[in-house]
Amino acid sequence: MMAYVKEFADYPPEISQQQQDFAVGQLKNYALSVGFTVKPFAVQTDDGPKLPEGAVPAPITLYPSLFPKSCFEEALDIQQSYNTLYANITRDTAWLEDIVPQLAKIDDFVENLWNIHLQLKDGGYTQPLTLGLFRSDYMVHLDKTPGSKPQIRQVEFNTIASSFGGLSTRAAQIHRYLLTNNIYPSTSSSALSPDALAPSDAAAGLAHGLANGHKAYLSHTKPTMEDTCILFIVQPSERNIFDQQHIENELVNTHSIPVFRSTLATVLTQTHLTDTSVLIYTHPSTQRKYEVTLLYYRAGYAPTEYTSPADWTARLTLERSRAIKCPTVLLQLAGMKKVQQVLALPDSPHLQRFLPNADTERLRNTFALMYPLDSTPSGKEGQAIALNEATAKGYVLKPQREGGGNNIYRSDIPAFLKERPESEWGAYVLMQMIEPPAQRNTIVRMTAAKEGQGVVGVVETGGVICELGIYGTCLFSMAGQTAGAVQSNEVAGYLLRTKGDTSSEGGVAAGFGALDSVCLVGDDALGAGS
Amino acid sequence: MMAYVKEFADYPPEISQQQQDFAVGQLKNYALSVGFTVKPFAVQTDDGPKLPEGAVPAPITLYPSLFPKSCFEEALDIQQSYNTLYANITRDTAWLEDIVPQLAKIDDFVENLWNIHLQLKDGGYTQPLTLGLFRSDYMVHLDKTPGSKPQIRQVEFNTIASSFGGLSTRAAQIHRYLLTNNIYPSTSSSALSPDALAPSDAAAGLAHGLANGHKAYLSHTKPTMEDTCILFIVQPSERNIFDQQHIENELVNTHSIPVFRSTLATVLTQTHLTDTSVLIYTHPSTQRKYEVTLLYYRAGYAPTEYTSPADWTARLTLERSRAIKCPTVLLQLAGMKKVQQVLALPDSPHLQRFLPNADTERLRNTFALMYPLDSTPSGKEGQAIALNEATAKGYVLKPQREGGGNNIYRSDIPAFLKERPESEWGAYVLMQMIEPPAQRNTIVRMTAAKEGQGVVGVVETGGVICELGIYGTCLFSMAGQTAGAVQSNEVAGYLLRTKGDTSSEGGVAAGFGALDSVCLVGDDALGAGS
Repeated sequence: MMAYVKEFADYPPEISQQQQDFAVGQLKNYALSVGFTVKPFAVQTDDGPKLPEGAVPAPITLYPSLFPKSCFEEALDIQQSYNTLYANITRDTAWLEDIVPQLAKIDDFVENLWNIHLQLKDGGYTQPLTLGLFRSDYMVHLDKTPGSKPQIRQVEFNTIASSFGGLSTRAAQIHRYLLTNNIYPSTSSSALSPDALAPSDAAAGLAHGLANGHKAYLSHTKPTMEDTCILFIVQPSERNIFDQQHIENELVNTHSIPVFRSTLATVLTQTHLTDTSVLIYTHPSTQRKYEVTLLYYRAGYAPTEYTSPADWTARLTLERSRAIKCPTVLLQLAGMKKVQQVLALPDSPHLQRFLPNADTERLRNTFALMYPLDSTPSGKEGQAIALNEATAKGYVLKPQREGGGNNIYRSDIPAFLKERPESEWGAYVLMQMIEPPAQRNTIVRMTAAKEGQGVVGVVETGGVICELGIYGTCLFSMAGQTAGAVQSNEVAGYLLRTKGDTSSEGGVAAGFGALDSVCLVGDDALGAGS
Repeated sequence: MMAYVKEFADYPPEISQQQQDFAVGQLKNYALSVGFTVKPFAVQTDDGPKLPEGAVPAPITLYPSLFPKSCFEEALDIQQSYNTLYANITRDTAWLEDIVPQLAKIDDFVENLWNIHLQLKDGGYTQPLTLGLFRSDYMVHLDKTPGSKPQIRQVEFNTIASSFGGLSTRAAQIHRYLLTNNIYPSTSSSALSPDALAPSDAAAGLAHGLANGHKAYLSHTKPTMEDTCILFIVQPSERNIFDQQHIENELVNTHSIPVFRSTLATVLTQTHLTDTSVLIYTHPSTQRKYEVTLLYYRAGYAPTEYTSPADWTARLTLERSRAIKCPTVLLQLAGMKKVQQVLALPDSPHLQRFLPNADTERLRNTFALMYPLDSTPSGKEGQAIALNEATAKGYVLKPQREGGGNNIYRSDIPAFLKERPESEWGAYVLMQMIEPPAQRNTIVRMTAAKEGQGVVGVVETGGVICELGIYGTCLFSMAGQTAGAVQSNEVAGYLLRTKGDTSSEGGVAAGFGALDSVCLVGDDALGAGS
């Protein structure tokens, strides 16, 4: 067996089939008892596809993956600066007006979002406050130079529908339970100890952020009705419903805030705007009316979700309302890859501009090199790297369009570009590859049974790589001076997601990610051993 | 519609099909998110019946049922006296020696349990401490006399495997969530308010009782090994596994006590006794060894569970061990209907004997009249009542044998007895019928789909009756003086179970019970309205 890690080469321990069966059985029962679940796969019925009764465990690793403690702490430490950065980008509509229209030309989806802003910018906005529930995603980058330390590199920064917070809290609980109850073989590596496992308070943290938004509406906007609620905008037939339910449960049980759900397709039949743009929600079952304080989007982030002009009308109507949006179209647009690329340009002045007094250098250290491929000087630099096989092999080509197709990797890039006219190159961003250290783990997941409605469990062991997400919540005002614009700014737990290392042979099926939690180790633990 | 209740005739409110569908959908998602679940029905596979992956909601009422507050509080108030009563009965082996052998003659199961005691009574017991996790079950009795107040009447007192504590905590949470989040129609009766809903801390309370037993072993018995654990004795292929899992989770996460499971069939291969009767458990997966501090039986209460002499050998071996038993065979036998009947005899001196300084009268008020049907003077009195149709109609005939067949009700009793020789009558107990007030509710449950492995949801509305269970935990010593013998004595939450009122037409299918929680009302609320 290839040694994936330098220290803790025995991690995770080799176990027999019987030991694995036992541990997986315990894991599943615990997962189901704490709602670490998703809906089973949809089945065909006479009324169309339908989600079956019940729930099955969400995919998860059997062991917490090793993660450098220094990287984990750095990611947590800089989250509030990232929150501020994206609040300030969103507030600077003049700056966005320089960036977004270029992209709107090549991306209908961006154009539609931007058009909503254009229709509202002259007096159409009625709510100065914006709520961000963010997730900054990183991989650990391990340079091949001897003696280099592992560092976090940002994969993307999510400004809409940052998911898995409800489940991530429970993923960490599952691993802690398995450790505390001695389910792991007693030969388990010394890496595994209670102190090395980090809990994630994402479910409570995200709910706290939403409750902050709700309370700000009550105190600043002043509701016109006695009954108020938070409205989740969700996708129809969502399998990941329990992830959202955990956030709802915190809001209802801990904060005593009613929570309801609607979709882009139904929201206009269930709500209306008053003359003063107050958003009134009429509950379709009880007919009780509520003033919506906060719209929390767990939908509307993918072009495919807008299936008709009516869906865009719904988005525009909601954006026009007095409810606080999490997020607004502007905050959603601030999460484009193009913004990430502009910030990451070598010698970019933008980071300093948006974060004059904060951790500019620490944030910059998390950036991977990114280039446009347009006719600007940086774009020409990017083109030169992309067209040369020797340099291209350290990069990935990403479409700028949201939902715009697959990434092109390494030496495939030059040929891919040469097959296309240069006028289309501007639709891509060139990003330096992050080289995360691989390690071994076992992924437990459900798959649809071949016949009938059931699901069957699958357990796969092999090389995996991890992606860390840090949640942050930020309530900020679009109006007034920058000083004081950010009204609350908090770190809200973490997510670890793990997937098969496609460069390794066999083992974990490609494309199937699993939730995970961190087992913190020193800087020297990871990286291929000899 | 017949008015079931005098006050709150609008409870629960009539709702449209659409309203019900919405509320049931919300209920199921919340239930699944907090582990208010059971395993789906077993399916046939090539390896025999198997429980499918995943979980489905346990059966539950849509609304909390109305329950007289005075009855609820009285049941909670007297639980500690009931705990003491059954501890003192169990301690008085001489008294049990008067009662049990009579029953052992007609009941193999009682005989087998009693034989274990006989084999151990002369020096075979190695652990003076016994733990009881009790549940005292009541119905509200409403006399037809005008002006009479509702009173609790005891149905039975459970001394082994008192179940549903883990789920009852969540049943109360579900109803509170539905109320807090305004899922019930806003026309809902004034009976429904946050203050009227009582939470149940049974999951934490039962775990606390088990942790008390574990700690007593550590401090009094002194373990010989460093690793210790609690061992649950469970049934194979248990569908109600999450009810147990919630108690295990509290023990592991809150009390940091490892918990493992075994069955009567497997326990002897996984454990052994040392020379000093210490029970050592070798984990079948990790091979790690633990000294068992406490055996918690969630199995072994039904005759059908002992499928071979080996199962009895297992029970004897465990009983001989130094582990604290929850319960011992003696405590299990103290829960026989016969003991309940002897205590309930008019002018019985036994209650006073076991509870000289406590709530004797309050406990006596909870007793339904019970008679033996043997040749004793009380037995002759019972026979006279049972053979007369006019008096028999207020009674139910219950087999004394555990798992010994169905109850015979009211006017069916005289003919049933006359068909049998008088020598067999002693195998039955005659118990006064409890006349609980009926009310309406809606029960949400899953049933096996006709084809395939799936389950389908069923929702039924109709007349229902409720049974209240109060959990108690009691750690006591079999040795020494009565004073000081009880080392801990606590109330541990409640269970409300609700089933179709078979005297009403249609509606809720007979035999299908559901979990429920209380909506507390005044003494005058219940009883048929005009």
